[in-house]
Amino acid sequence: MVITLTTDFGDVYPAIMKGVILSIDPGAVLVDISHSVGPGDVRGGAFILQFASRYFPEGSVHLAVVDPGVGGERRALIIRGEKYSFVGPDNGLLMPAARAQGRYRVYELTDHMFFMKRVSPVFHGRDVFAPAAAFLSKGIDIPCLREIGDPIDLDFGVPEIEDGKIAGKVIYVDRFGNVVTNVGGDALSGLLHLGETPDINGVDIDFVRTYSEVPRRTLILLVGSHGMAEIACNGDSAASLMGLREGDRVIIKPPRGKT
Amino acid sequence: MVITLTTDFGDVYPAIMKGVILSIDPGAVLVDISHSVGPGDVRGGAFILQFASRYFPEGSVHLAVVDPGVGGERRALIIRGEKYSFVGPDNGLLMPAARAQGRYRVYELTDHMFFMKRVSPVFHGRDVFAPAAAFLSKGIDIPCLREIGDPIDLDFGVPEIEDGKIAGKVIYVDRFGNVVTNVGGDALSGLLHLGETPDINGVDIDFVRTYSEVPRRTLILLVGSHGMAEIACNGDSAASLMGLREGDRVIIKPPRGKT
Amino acid sequence: MVITLTTDFGDVYPAIMKGVILSIDPGAVLVDISHSVGPGDVRGGAFILQFASRYFPEGSVHLAVVDPGVGGERRALIIRGEKYSFVGPDNGLLMPAARAQGRYRVYELTDHMFFMKRVSPVFHGRDVFAPAAAFLSKGIDIPCLREIGDPIDLDFGVPEIEDGKIAGKVIYVDRFGNVVTNVGGDALSGLLHLGETPDINGVDIDFVRTYSEVPRRTLILLVGSHGMAEIACNGDSAASLMGLREGDRVIIKPPRGKT
Repeated sequence: MVITLTTDFGDVYPAIMKGVILSIDPGAVLVDISHSVGPGDVRGGAFILQFASRYFPEGSVHLAVVDPGVGGERRALIIRGEKYSFVGPDNGLLMPAARAQGRYRVYELTDHMFFMKRVSPVFHGRDVFAPAAAFLSKGIDIPCLREIGDPIDLDFGVPEIEDGKIAGKVIYVDRFGNVVTNVGGDALSGLLHLGETPDINGVDIDFVRTYSEVPRRTLILLVGSHGMAEIACNGDSAASLMGLREGDRVIIKPPRGKT
Repeated sequence: MVITLTTDFGDVYPAIMKGVILSIDPGAVLVDISHSVGPGDVRGGAFILQFASRYFPEGSVHLAVVDPGVGGERRALIIRGEKYSFVGPDNGLLMPAARAQGRYRVYELTDHMFFMKRVSPVFHGRDVFAPAAAFLSKGIDIPCLREIGDPIDLDFGVPEIEDGKIAGKVIYVDRFGNVVTNVGGDALSGLLHLGETPDINGVDIDFVRTYSEVPRRTLILLVGSHGMAEIACNGDSAASLMGLREGDRVIIKPPRGKT
Repeated sequence: MVITLTTDFGDVYPAIMKGVILSIDPGAVLVDISHSVGPGDVRGGAFILQFASRYFPEGSVHLAVVDPGVGGERRALIIRGEKYSFVGPDNGLLMPAARAQGRYRVYELTDHMFFMKRVSPVFHGRDVFAPAAAFLSKGIDIPCLREIGDPIDLDFGVPEIEDGKIAGKVIYVDRFGNVVTNVGGDALSGLLHLGETPDINGVDIDFVRTYSEVPRRTLILLVGSHGMAEIACNGDSAASLMGLREGDRVIIKPPRGKT
């Protein structure tokens, strides 16, 4: 069975989680989604997990650990969904991905019989979450799971659409400096046609279908591969050019003649 | 079957390609060659692919996506070679590797029946190339492939050898700052003996067999593990010390007394 | 069988080693521990290997290459231990991990019949160590191994404890800037109780159980997931704040009232 891993651990620590998993389930197929989530950036991790998890085979287990509250009071979760299972901390990280895949139930992971003998207060990835994911992947029932109704939630917000403009925000900046917003492709299409030039935070930017339609180093607006409005620049970082970071507001106004 | 991946995607996007592949061919063995190719650097990607692909088992599928023209007119290719298959964009990326492994035939990937239902204009890695690689790996025949005779080609150039000196260029700079040139080991051996000290771009540099022959932080010329002349410096970046980048000229003159 | 890889190679080169391994043992399960060891940093690599290797299934082969002496006189080693085998250069890299897993015997890898036809003087990872690891993983006996009694050793030193203070040193700095010392958790507990505030290199730092007990961006001392005393800072780099690097001295004095 496939187990994916999404963390802010960089290297070494993910390998330790894999060693623990393979010791329990030698047949697990391990796929790294990312270990470069910003340290402690639960929202960034949640976006990545929600975007990437949907492409894996049904039955995959998605193990995610971005966990600034490790060792404190925060609960450990297993989410069993229609298509996927999720394992990770109760801080919102898993919720957008769980919601995206259909129905799901949330359980608190309280049974310590499955954990490593000594649970480190600083590395639950190794001692709690990795063993749980391996047991799920192997199809071993974990007893004593307690269903809960109040997991900590997290969403990417809903853009405001009024006076014919959209006020959204940045939810992710990728390696290329592409700026992903929380404005869905449909909302964008309600405001603009391809080829039009909206005003985004005061800058006129063409709304195009793909990178190769404009000369390199030109700012563009497009619907990205995740289905969200994205500000990009082939050959340069749109985030730097626009001075945008995760959480910043993005105001999209239709071309001046149009309003 | 082994499928290798070479892209400029950094993280997250390669994982999505893997999810797509494993959904089609759950038994695929996935190996990352690199996801740190410079954004849009087709030549750098082509060098890496050509160098690394040859060490994989016969029958491996090499999937490579460095694709600044995605969504435009550029074609999608499958290359079936004597030892390997290749999948990627028609921009030269695959050609040096295909040539290095023996005979091959190039096909345009036009049959949309194998693609994901909605092809994103910005992420053919997910929607076109990953499914094609998975079908190849699984041995499923892809119908309607059209053989073509005019793929876009790319090579690393041939160094000029005249007046007893070699004029080549930089084709790759690795993580250590080692500078790989397009000058083959044989050409170099025709000009120099081990232990001699040629003039390279005005700097006297010893031609040695390996890093450990000289004190650390000394510039050296050697035949690298890819069989090409390489300027290196154990413990420092030869690229920084020499001010060399991909594409720059490298003039190697034999030791002064020799000409 | 599992084969782990630990190198300072960055990317591309580890993929080549994997291609070589899979050509010999197509069923090998390959796990990257790290390829971001500092270039030539044998001690850092040895710490990582010693920390991570213990979590893998019994019988795993740990292949490690941090090898500034490649191509020189240094020997190539196979270590057969109670739980694991190790393959790599004779420069101390493998020794702490071999010791940590129980009894072991050290062999010089002299039989060239298993190597690639042309051994590059600069890439034994590909031409010597990867094939050896694949043969070990496949259970093929490598003949002509010569047991040796004088491998180059390396350890992380023993902290001095006197006058009621501990003088240790930094053995590793991780991605978050957490500073791992060679002071074991037991030694620390002999000097301090949780909740006390020792003086570390002149700075008062609370000794806590986990990151979440203090406000973010506060320096803390804790026993890390490797069982060693660690100076950390949730949300910032303790290494930068304290000006500490690998090899630096760390003096831990009990709270002033206590001595």
